[in-house]
Amino acid sequence: MPSGLVLYGYWRSSAAYRVRIALALKGLAWESRPVHLVKDGGEQHAADYAAMNPQQLVPCLRDGERVLTQSLAIMEYLDETRPGPALLPADAGGRARVRALAQLVACDIHPLGNLRVLQYLERELGIGEAQRGAWSRHWIATGFAAMEAMMAGNPATGRYCHGDTPGLADACLVPQVYNAVRWKLSLDDYPTIRRIHAACGELEAFRNAAPEVQPDAPAA
Amino acid sequence: MPSGLVLYGYWRSSAAYRVRIALALKGLAWESRPVHLVKDGGEQHAADYAAMNPQQLVPCLRDGERVLTQSLAIMEYLDETRPGPALLPADAGGRARVRALAQLVACDIHPLGNLRVLQYLERELGIGEAQRGAWSRHWIATGFAAMEAMMAGNPATGRYCHGDTPGLADACLVPQVYNAVRWKLSLDDYPTIRRIHAACGELEAFRNAAPEVQPDAPAA
Repeated sequence: MPSGLVLYGYWRSSAAYRVRIALALKGLAWESRPVHLVKDGGEQHAADYAAMNPQQLVPCLRDGERVLTQSLAIMEYLDETRPGPALLPADAGGRARVRALAQLVACDIHPLGNLRVLQYLERELGIGEAQRGAWSRHWIATGFAAMEAMMAGNPATGRYCHGDTPGLADACLVPQVYNAVRWKLSLDDYPTIRRIHAACGELEAFRNAAPEVQPDAPAA
Repeated sequence: MPSGLVLYGYWRSSAAYRVRIALALKGLAWESRPVHLVKDGGEQHAADYAAMNPQQLVPCLRDGERVLTQSLAIMEYLDETRPGPALLPADAGGRARVRALAQLVACDIHPLGNLRVLQYLERELGIGEAQRGAWSRHWIATGFAAMEAMMAGNPATGRYCHGDTPGLADACLVPQVYNAVRWKLSLDDYPTIRRIHAACGELEAFRNAAPEVQPDAPAA
């Protein structure tokens, strides 16, 4: 099913990982254009990429002539323009809950542990590796504690973040768990998050979107 | 027009400011419940508030029994459930553009200069006031440069961020400009942002949402 979708991403980028999950959940074919975030000072800063996406971040999705940025906006766009399972619930209250869970990750956890932020902490502020790790774990733990409280015991939570259909919030949660594991954050305090992460891991859509199976991932 | 909407906010919070703009653009009445983010270690950490919003952040909007968090999710909810001018365009491409501009601010600028992050830099990492200011200006300047590039010369940009109707992206931009001014960031390099900010400032909806006219703002 050629869909004309081209994803500019990076195997280990959480935000690109979210979009890969959304594309897979909707069953869409897409072409991968890896952008190496570290090599040669970062290919995202190359002139041609910066002309397409002035933020010089990944992901960026091309749909024919249209260029889309920001992972949450991209996922909503895919949901609005493509057939396949809905990534957002049909009711306004459910949509607000799913968006809030997704934004908890995308606004209040992920940006603080992003590569450019860690580089600033190291290069401009002289913050060492141990303290950068503590910083990253702190923001993930703070966000996960809130997310756990919002989901545990809430009847709207199902097998996945919202009901029994995987969607936008799960597409944000799973990459953030991957990132937490990289930083060796214990997940003991977040049983609901662990349960949902495991449920997602049983789905091919999530497995095929995983960083380590992307074409630009280094050999194990 | 009683609408049953109760906003938990703080006069100077950028995220609460966004929601106040959205409420005003849609012409909705709402009740203000100020949450002082600094006094007594922060009222957002009080048990009753934390039970309602486990993230212990503002804003939080109550619509009857429903509790809504995350400013972007709240604004989309208001747009979906309330009459009045639309905050998002009708076409999927336009919606994606507006959401991307809003998320550029809400994901990639604002979270890095948030109070809790500046407190962590100061208390945990010993970063002084001058470097915290440089940090804040760096992330605003980085984001504004990209936003300027995405809007300047783009035919989709109008009197406001998207066309000639103020909406979601403007509701994010204006509070971020307020924050930039607080940090004494020069706006000389962002003529389109300055022009749109000025256009918004002519509208009562934006003026009535401004921090300094909120009931919990300190006397000038």
